[in-house]
Parts: sequence; C-alpha cells; structure tokens
Amino acid sequence: MEAAELLTRIEALEASLKMATTVNSEVFYWWCTALMVAIHAGFLAYEMGASRAKNALATGVKNLAAFAFLIPFFYFVGWYIYNAFPAGFIPGDASGALPWSTHMGPNLEDQASGIFWAAFTMFAATTASIMSGAVIERIRVSGFIILAIFLGSVVWVFGAAWGWHPAGWLTSTFGLHDIGAAGCVHMVAGFFTLGVLINLGPRIGRFNADGTVNEINGHNMAMSLIGLMLIVMGFFGFLGGCIIYTGDTWMTIYNTPTTFSAFAFNTLMAVAGGMLGCYLVTRDPFWMMSGALVGVISSAPGLDVYYPPLAFLISFAGGLVIPKLHNILLTKFKIDDAVGAVSVHGFGGVWGLVAVGIFASGYPNVEGPAISLGGQFMSMLVFLALGLIPGFVLSYILKMAGLLRCAPEAEEAGLDITEVPVKAYPESRIPAFGDGALTPAE
Amino acid sequence: MEAAELLTRIEALEASLKMATTVNSEVFYWWCTALMVAIHAGFLAYEMGASRAKNALATGVKNLAAFAFLIPFFYFVGWYIYNAFPAGFIPGDASGALPWSTHMGPNLEDQASGIFWAAFTMFAATTASIMSGAVIERIRVSGFIILAIFLGSVVWVFGAAWGWHPAGWLTSTFGLHDIGAAGCVHMVAGFFTLGVLINLGPRIGRFNADGTVNEINGHNMAMSLIGLMLIVMGFFGFLGGCIIYTGDTWMTIYNTPTTFSAFAFNTLMAVAGGMLGCYLVTRDPFWMMSGALVGVISSAPGLDVYYPPLAFLISFAGGLVIPKLHNILLTKFKIDDAVGAVSVHGFGGVWGLVAVGIFASGYPNVEGPAISLGGQFMSMLVFLALGLIPGFVLSYILKMAGLLRCAPEAEEAGLDITEVPVKAYPESRIPAFGDGALTPAE
Amino acid sequence: MEAAELLTRIEALEASLKMATTVNSEVFYWWCTALMVAIHAGFLAYEMGASRAKNALATGVKNLAAFAFLIPFFYFVGWYIYNAFPAGFIPGDASGALPWSTHMGPNLEDQASGIFWAAFTMFAATTASIMSGAVIERIRVSGFIILAIFLGSVVWVFGAAWGWHPAGWLTSTFGLHDIGAAGCVHMVAGFFTLGVLINLGPRIGRFNADGTVNEINGHNMAMSLIGLMLIVMGFFGFLGGCIIYTGDTWMTIYNTPTTFSAFAFNTLMAVAGGMLGCYLVTRDPFWMMSGALVGVISSAPGLDVYYPPLAFLISFAGGLVIPKLHNILLTKFKIDDAVGAVSVHGFGGVWGLVAVGIFASGYPNVEGPAISLGGQFMSMLVFLALGLIPGFVLSYILKMAGLLRCAPEAEEAGLDITEVPVKAYPESRIPAFGDGALTPAE
Repeated sequence: MEAAELLTRIEALEASLKMATTVNSEVFYWWCTALMVAIHAGFLAYEMGASRAKNALATGVKNLAAFAFLIPFFYFVGWYIYNAFPAGFIPGDASGALPWSTHMGPNLEDQASGIFWAAFTMFAATTASIMSGAVIERIRVSGFIILAIFLGSVVWVFGAAWGWHPAGWLTSTFGLHDIGAAGCVHMVAGFFTLGVLINLGPRIGRFNADGTVNEINGHNMAMSLIGLMLIVMGFFGFLGGCIIYTGDTWMTIYNTPTTFSAFAFNTLMAVAGGMLGCYLVTRDPFWMMSGALVGVISSAPGLDVYYPPLAFLISFAGGLVIPKLHNILLTKFKIDDAVGAVSVHGFGGVWGLVAVGIFASGYPNVEGPAISLGGQFMSMLVFLALGLIPGFVLSYILKMAGLLRCAPEAEEAGLDITEVPVKAYPESRIPAFGDGALTPAE
Repeated sequence: MEAAELLTRIEALEASLKMATTVNSEVFYWWCTALMVAIHAGFLAYEMGASRAKNALATGVKNLAAFAFLIPFFYFVGWYIYNAFPAGFIPGDASGALPWSTHMGPNLEDQASGIFWAAFTMFAATTASIMSGAVIERIRVSGFIILAIFLGSVVWVFGAAWGWHPAGWLTSTFGLHDIGAAGCVHMVAGFFTLGVLINLGPRIGRFNADGTVNEINGHNMAMSLIGLMLIVMGFFGFLGGCIIYTGDTWMTIYNTPTTFSAFAFNTLMAVAGGMLGCYLVTRDPFWMMSGALVGVISSAPGLDVYYPPLAFLISFAGGLVIPKLHNILLTKFKIDDAVGAVSVHGFGGVWGLVAVGIFASGYPNVEGPAISLGGQFMSMLVFLALGLIPGFVLSYILKMAGLLRCAPEAEEAGLDITEVPVKAYPESRIPAFGDGALTPAE
Repeated sequence: MEAAELLTRIEALEASLKMATTVNSEVFYWWCTALMVAIHAGFLAYEMGASRAKNALATGVKNLAAFAFLIPFFYFVGWYIYNAFPAGFIPGDASGALPWSTHMGPNLEDQASGIFWAAFTMFAATTASIMSGAVIERIRVSGFIILAIFLGSVVWVFGAAWGWHPAGWLTSTFGLHDIGAAGCVHMVAGFFTLGVLINLGPRIGRFNADGTVNEINGHNMAMSLIGLMLIVMGFFGFLGGCIIYTGDTWMTIYNTPTTFSAFAFNTLMAVAGGMLGCYLVTRDPFWMMSGALVGVISSAPGLDVYYPPLAFLISFAGGLVIPKLHNILLTKFKIDDAVGAVSVHGFGGVWGLVAVGIFASGYPNVEGPAISLGGQFMSMLVFLALGLIPGFVLSYILKMAGLLRCAPEAEEAGLDITEVPVKAYPESRIPAFGDGALTPAE
C-alpha cells in the first residue's frame, strides 16, 4: 500500500476522533444541564417545605417564574456579558455571543455554543434560586422576578466573566483560583441576597418588640430534606459543568489540567464534612442538608487540588461555623434569612475562597500569578461588593417603588390568597384554609 | 517500519474507534432511559397530588401498573410493530425485532438493540402516562391497564413507525418533520385520551345540573409541582433519545444532520416560552408547569431547525392558547380532563406540527419531499385519527363490558377504599379516613 | 511522506484514543455516582413516608447521618479492604488504596481511582441504607450510625472483595457469578439487618399479648412511592457501575465480556416482573414498588446472560414469593421489619444467586470454574453468614451497652421529640404535635 493511501486513512481517523470528542463533549454538557434541572425540582421542594402552608404556592410560583424568565434573559443578555467582559467593564469582542449571531442557534459548524449556553443558563437559574429561599413569605412575586432576572442575567455573569473564565481579570491580576464557582455563583448570590434582605425586612412576627426571636418553621420539613438531597444530586451536574471536556484531558476553566477523579474524591468528602460539621452543632436535619451545600461550597474553589481528607476538614470547619454565623445575623443584625442562604452561600463562599489561599498557596495558574492568600482575599472582596451593592441598590429602588414587599394584611393572611389562584392543600384544615376564615380570591 | 505494519496499526485504530463509538452510544441511551424513569417518578407525584386524598393511591397504583405491564408488552409486541410497519399496515421484514430473535437478548455481536429497545420502552410508558392523569378519580384500574397497554404497545407505535422512523410513510409521502415526537407520542396520546374521556364521562360533581362547572382540586399541589419539574428533567432523556448517536455527527430520526447545541438552545427556550405563556394567562403554578410541557411539545417537531427566539415565541403562543382550549373543552364540551392532558399533549402537538410547517417550510428531508404546511397538516390529521378512533372504540367496548368506570358509590367514597388495601395518610383527618365514617376494606 | 512521520501520527492517534477512552470512562462513573445520590433522595422519601409522623424526622436524620459518616469511613477503611482482601482474610498488596497513597487524591497520572472510589462509596451508602428502613421508629440514632458504618465500610466490603472482584475467592473457588451485586450488597445488607432486628425487637404495639399482629402504617404512602421510583431511577447508576468501561467493549466485574444492551433488556424486564408479581399477590402499591427492587435483585446476578423473558419470569417469581416470606417472618418469627428489607434484599438476593445457578449453569468464568448451582449455593451461604453474624454480634454488643434502642417512653411519644430539635409538620394536628399533649424538647 502506498504512503499516500495510509495518510488518507490517518487523516480520516484524526477527523473522526476529533468529531467523536466533540460529540461526547456535547453529551456531557447535555447531562450536566439535565441534572441542573434537578436542582430546580429540589429548590421547589425545599423552599415550599420551608414556607408555612399559607405561603407554599406563592413560594413555588416565585421559583418557577425566576426559572422561566431567566432563560430568555440569559439568551439575550447574559451570554454576551460572560463573553464580552472578562477584562472588567470594557467589553471585548464577543460578537459570536450576540443573539443575532449564527452561533446562537442551530449551526452544523458549531457544536459547542448551544450546549455551553444551556449549562450556563442553568448556572444562572441556580444563582437566582439561591436568593429565592431567603426572601419567602413576604416578597412580592413581581419584585422578586425583577431581582432574579438582574441577579441571574447580569450581576453574577460579571462575576463569572471576571473570575471564572480563562481570561478573567481576577485570575490574571490576583491569581484567583475558584474551580467550583464559589465566588461568582455562591458569594455573589449570597451577598446580593443580604442586600435585598436589608431592604425587605423580616417577616411579621419574626422578632418581638424586645428584639427576641420567634421561630417560624416551614410546614413540611420532610419535603425540604428530600429537595435538598435532589439539589446534592444536581450538584454533580453543576460541578461537572465546571470542567472543560477535551479529548485529551480535562481542563479547569482556567486551562489548568485536572481529573474527574479529583472532583469525585473531593466532592463527596466535602459533602460529608459539611453535613457532619452542621450535625455536630445543630442535630437539625435541615442544617445537615444545608451542611451538604456548605461542604460543597467550602471546598469548591480547590476541588482540583485538595487532598481529600483536607477537603473533608475544610468543609467540616465550614459546617461547624456557618450555623453560628446564621444565628448571629439573625439575633444581632435582625436579618431574617428564612433558609440561611446568606450564610450558606455567602459566608460559605468567603471561607471557600480564603481556604484555597491558605491551603493551595503557590499553586501555579496558566494566566496570571500563582494562588495566594492575598489574591484570594482581594477577589473575595470583589465578589462581596459585586453581590451586595447591586442587591442593596436594586431592592432599595423596588422598595421605593412599592414593588418589594407585600401588604402586611396579605402577609398575615398568607400570600397564596393574594398571589395564587389555587390552593396548595384544599382538603387540609391548616389555619389559612378550610376553616372558613379566609378563602382565596379565585 | 514497513507499510504493512503501519496498515495493521491503522486498521486496529479504525476498529477501536468504531467500538468506542458503539460503547459511547450505548452509554448515551442508557442515561436517556434512566432519566425517562424520572418522568415516571414525576408523573407519580404529579397525578397523586392532582387527585383528592381519597383517590391518591388508586391514582398511583394505576401509574405503576401501566409502567410494569408496558415493559413486557413492548418487548413482545411494540418493538416488532415499530420495526415492521413504517409503510402503513403491511408489515415489512422485522425478523430481528421478533421476541425469539437473537437480537432480542444478550448478544455480543449486537450492542444496539437492547439499548434502543429500552429507550423506546420508556417512550411507550411515557405515552401511556399521558393518558393516565386525565382519567383519574373514576376509572377502573383494570380498564385503565387495558387501555394503557393498547395505547403504549400498539397504537402510538404505529404512529412512531409511520412518522418517527427513517422510512416512515408520513415522511416519505408528506415530508413530515417531527423530531421530538409531538405527533406519535403527544398527539396520539392526547387524542386517544379524548376518545376515552368521551366514554368515561366526568367525575361525579364536576358539573351541576345546569351545566356549570365545579372546581375539583387535587389534595397536594406542592407535590404536583415537584413532580412536573422532575418530568422536565426527564424530558432531557426523552429528547436526547430523539437523536441518533453516531461517531461522526448527530442525526435526526430522519437521517438529517443536527447538533445537540440546537436541541439545548431550543429545549430551554421552549420550556421558558411555554411557562411564561401559561403564567400570563393563568397565574396558576399548575399551569406554569404544564406550560413547560406545552412549550416542549409546541417546539418539539423543529428543535433541530428553529432559531431559539422563534422556539420561544412558538412555545409562548402555545402557552397562551392551551389553557383556553382546556377551558373550552371543559365548559362547552363537558370534557372532564383532570389535568389538561388532551389540551397540553393533543392540541400542543397539533400546534407543534403545524408550526414547523409554517416556520420551516421548504427545509429538505432525506426521504420524501421537503417540509410543507400541507404535509404537516395531513400528517397531523393522521395522528389525530390514530389516537382518537382507537381510544374511543376501545373505551366504548370496555364501557359496554362494565370495565371502564368504578361504581358511583366507590367514586364518592374514594377509590382508595375499594381498589387499594392500604391508606395514603392513615394519620390524617381528611374526610375519607380517620373520622370513622369509612374504613378501607383491608 | 516518510513512514516515520506516518508512524508519529499513528502513535499520536493511539494515545489520543486511549485518553478519550479514559475520559469517557470517567464521565460514565461520574454519572453513575450522581444517579446513586438519587437513591438516597429516594430512601429519604421512602423511609420518612413509611414512618409514623411522630418519627419522620428521626428516620431522616438516621439516613443523612449514615450517608455522611460512610463517605470518610469508606475513604479510610473500605476502599483498602476491597482492594486488599479478595483472597479471604489475609490481605494482599493494596498500597494504592491506602489513604496516604498518591492514588487517593488529585493525580494527573491516575484518572481512575477517584471515580471508582466514588462509585463504590455510593454502593456502600446504598448498602447501609438497606438496613435503614427496617429498624425505624425505635432504634437510637447513635447505635444506628455505628451499625451503618460497620456494615457499609467493613462488612459488605469483604463480600465485595470475595465475590464482586476480578480475583475474589468465591469466583475462583466456586465460580460465583453475581454481576449486579445481589450477594455482596443485597444479601449481606438484608441478613445483617435480620441480625440487628433479632436484638432490636419489634416496635411497641406491633404484636399483641396473644402474638397477633397490629398494622403500623407509615404516615405518607404517596411520599414513599415517589421515593421508591427515584430509587429505581438511581438503580441505573448502580447497575451501570457494575460494568467495566473499556474502550474496546464492556466487561463484567469478572472480566467476561458483556453489552449494555443485555443490561438494558434485563433490567427493565426484571423491574416489570417483580412489580407484577408483587401486584398479583398484594394489590398494594408499596409492595408494587418494593417489587421493582425485588425484580432487580432477583435477576441482578445474571443480567449479562439471561434471555429477557427469563429475567421477567425469575423476577416475577421473586415478586410472588417475597411478600409471603415477609409475612412469615412477621407472623411466625415475630420479626418487625418495618419496610420488608430482610425479605426484599436478603431473600431476594438468595433467590437471585440460586437462580443464576439454575438457569445459567455451565456458563464459563474467566477465573475459576463455570457457573454451577452448587457454587452459587455455597457462595450464597457465605454471604448469608457474612451478613447475619456481624449484624447479630454487633447489635448484641450495642444492646448490652444500652445504645441500640430508645427508651419506651420516647418511642411512644415519638422519636422526633427526643432526637430532633425541629418538627416535621409544625402546622399539622397529628397527635404528637399541635394538640398540646406533648411538645418537642427544643
């Protein structure tokens, strides 16, 4: 056989293998996207369960609306921001991410854009959902939707462009290392939520006149726990989506090599550490499952580099501390965060970013300086401001416009009566329904 | 090195790559199958929640029985029909799909049959489940099982052979384009259900003597919403299963090239459009989540070709209209479809098929003429008849045989008492249980 | 072009293809792991639903604690045992599985260890969860955690090393064939549970003084059914994890070739057979879904070799018999297994192992003799003893130490009051809460 013939066959093989890699990459992100939908089934169960029965459906409607609105907004706005703003606030060329680009739809020459867009859209919806639980039982659905759209399709996306992008300025300047998006997703969402909560205020009855706290328990803790476990399952889609699939090897979002084995070891050890830390200090199943999230977030920035028992300990420490921070926010600062989102995601993200500066300092980056405690700390401050300021400002504007909070009578009667035309449990004898005192405004 | 040696290595590589593709294809459909099981967890939650508490378990038993019966029936009957009848009612050669074929079991030479069969079996179970929610709270479990087996292992399979098969006559004759199975799955199931509902009649108390409608609400809307979100997750398995995995590229079921990116863009945009359309006209979370299904179904036939904002608009239009059609069926035609299956799946499928004729007219097919409005319309009529006629005839026969509907006393007391030996909520004080008035016939 | 250049390109292709296979293998087990988390969401729903409301959260806490503790224990202990003890009780070389090995963390040279460890860890957590449902409503959380850790990170792992390992002595000696882990996972967990139940004793009120049985029903059967369907979905992760992904073909854990098609055919047919068998003899939806597990377990050892209708029949037979065995255990032996775990997993596993000896006798193994009824039977006895003896001995020690069972007053009042600082349903009027008789010790 001639060399030319052999060459032809080699070239065909090279092309086939390249295409096979592309195809397998598409499948991978498709499943990431699907599992991130499980996060939303989980959030729905978790937040409705954490509401009193009189507010259960209003809580759910809020989640569903945020999910549905974010998809087109992320298509038209968010994806462009991610691609255009790695350098800060001056846009670079991102013409392929503009909604009229041929990359933004079916295109046999581009097998990647849609699948990456979809995974990012689910990241965006997750980010908005982080805020969602904290504000239940008194926020207006309309105001919430505006906040969710802004957080999910603008605010966190700047964070992602800056710190979770091969060319992000936080990495090129500070050597930021945050593989699992503890900064741009969790911190930004957590501190945005804090900004909103300051303007939104606590639920009626949460605090007594003397400042002491009343417990307000959700109506179905069992449903909340199941929902949180579905979120843990969905996190495998989320964290999988943090890895770049190439045929040759896995790359982090910063183009450093990694393995799925590292993620598998550290994800499970982090989940366990967070759960056990929270269990030790609370004995409360709601906090055990929140602890699974604390664990993932605490170790997320270094999933690629930690020795697994170290990930366990970092997350265990997070689990020990986060419930206490939640209590301090509640009792000292009178912040009524109904599910602990500020502490779990915000403070959890702070700890995660700082921890990688402590335990992986000196680890090299492809772009920019090596990992350092100072660089992680500076980046952390950026994420904190990026979340807190827009959350505070936008919710302040909404408050002035009368769009932020429901009327006190509606809140006391239950939001399902004013915001939802159907009943959650029409056969139940729970106070707001069925005893004749109040009926929904169908 | 000799050319012969190089050739040997090239041939080995070619074989390895071919096998790797086969292996990855198997994995892909395995996960599609797994996620379609999530559809059944979702249907279970959704339909039990949409039942009054006195009927919750009878609703669940029906779903579980349909799921379990369909698997062997699809093995023995359905798979053969799909392979034998693309030309109409005259069988072609499909000896490899006969249950005694060596392809229908472990076979190291055939890595594909079982995995495709499994995915199709889950399509079949999904099709039967579409009917399942509409008929709750008065259908007999035995009658339902017969209907479900017939719909899932015979009726829709003809639709799939005709219009969702590389050689189906609807495509070769009319140029039918229906990538996401809006016709053979959703329309056939929706109109089969309509045929059944005509004979089954409304639930006792649904209509007053003067023809006005009473609301009958399910006992746990929260559970229904979570279930519907699990179905959305499962749809990633369903829609993934609509694509042919080859090593080189993705093909639609009609052998036209496509990309997963197209599916990812359009699936999410369609979900969002449908949710928002329904939200706008109902504000009802049940319809928001039903709207997610409306969205998927409305855009399903053109997921490979639509520009994503177009998919959003098509699905948004579907979401605006479908709840109204449901109301017309209810108030004008006195059709008591407990969950809106006829409208969501039947009319949603009609709109999806027609829409691809409007917006993708002229797009070429490999077999048969290009997409056309007329061809889509004709195909739509075929699916409509294929669903409606058998559904009506079979349910009429069952009605005559006394197998279709429970006795009125059983319906009023709650089907769980007569059809299920255990209680759904033995500690609850809901009317049928616990107050001593009625006890299950354990 | 020179032969040397061609050779270089061929070598590059060979390396790329090898790496692509590695990468796809990693992805495969990552999704297996994710879906096995769904098993734990399912167990949570299933077991909380099967508890009376007064014990719902104590049941959940137990599951969450077992899940969280098992992960680090399996890292430090379990993985080493699996790798070191295929020959019996004398350790072989397993230095790569010691926690200080470079294989037990991020390692760019080892893309496999972490991903296999993660899948095995989820197997371990599943094994512990099998016991978990049987002992609800009276076991102490502390005692349960000790049992779960021992079962999940020591006991079953010996079973896996002996009978679910390429070099396990049960296979090399007896020709054991147990592809789907019916022995090491299901039988060991089931008989360990039996050993625990003997010492734990029945719930207060389960038996009357004359030995007759009172029904004790869970408070939310709907939640249990949904949970069990999530477990079925998760089983696709579990069974997928039973296959070795290579680029060339699929191998069983015993290095015999297999196909995913075989697994797909037989898994679904087994699920259906088990469901229908249980449905026929009970009409009870709880047993229908338990029957899905019975079905999988009954056919698990031969998923690679059975003709699918045979798998259906084997599982159908299991479904017919297992509920009766459960009743015999309950009425004759006064074993109060709250969810039927001993029968479903223990006896189901016995039947599965024996069945492959009956129906696949003579099928060759790579290591050791061919499949035989005698070899399957001997192996079955080993698994039975491996589960029963440690379960009995350890629970006896815990009983002597006063750690096994809650105080009778706590049991009657409901474990949530003593073991959990929050309420499951604070707005409900179910007896233990809200009527003022008893309040949790917050």
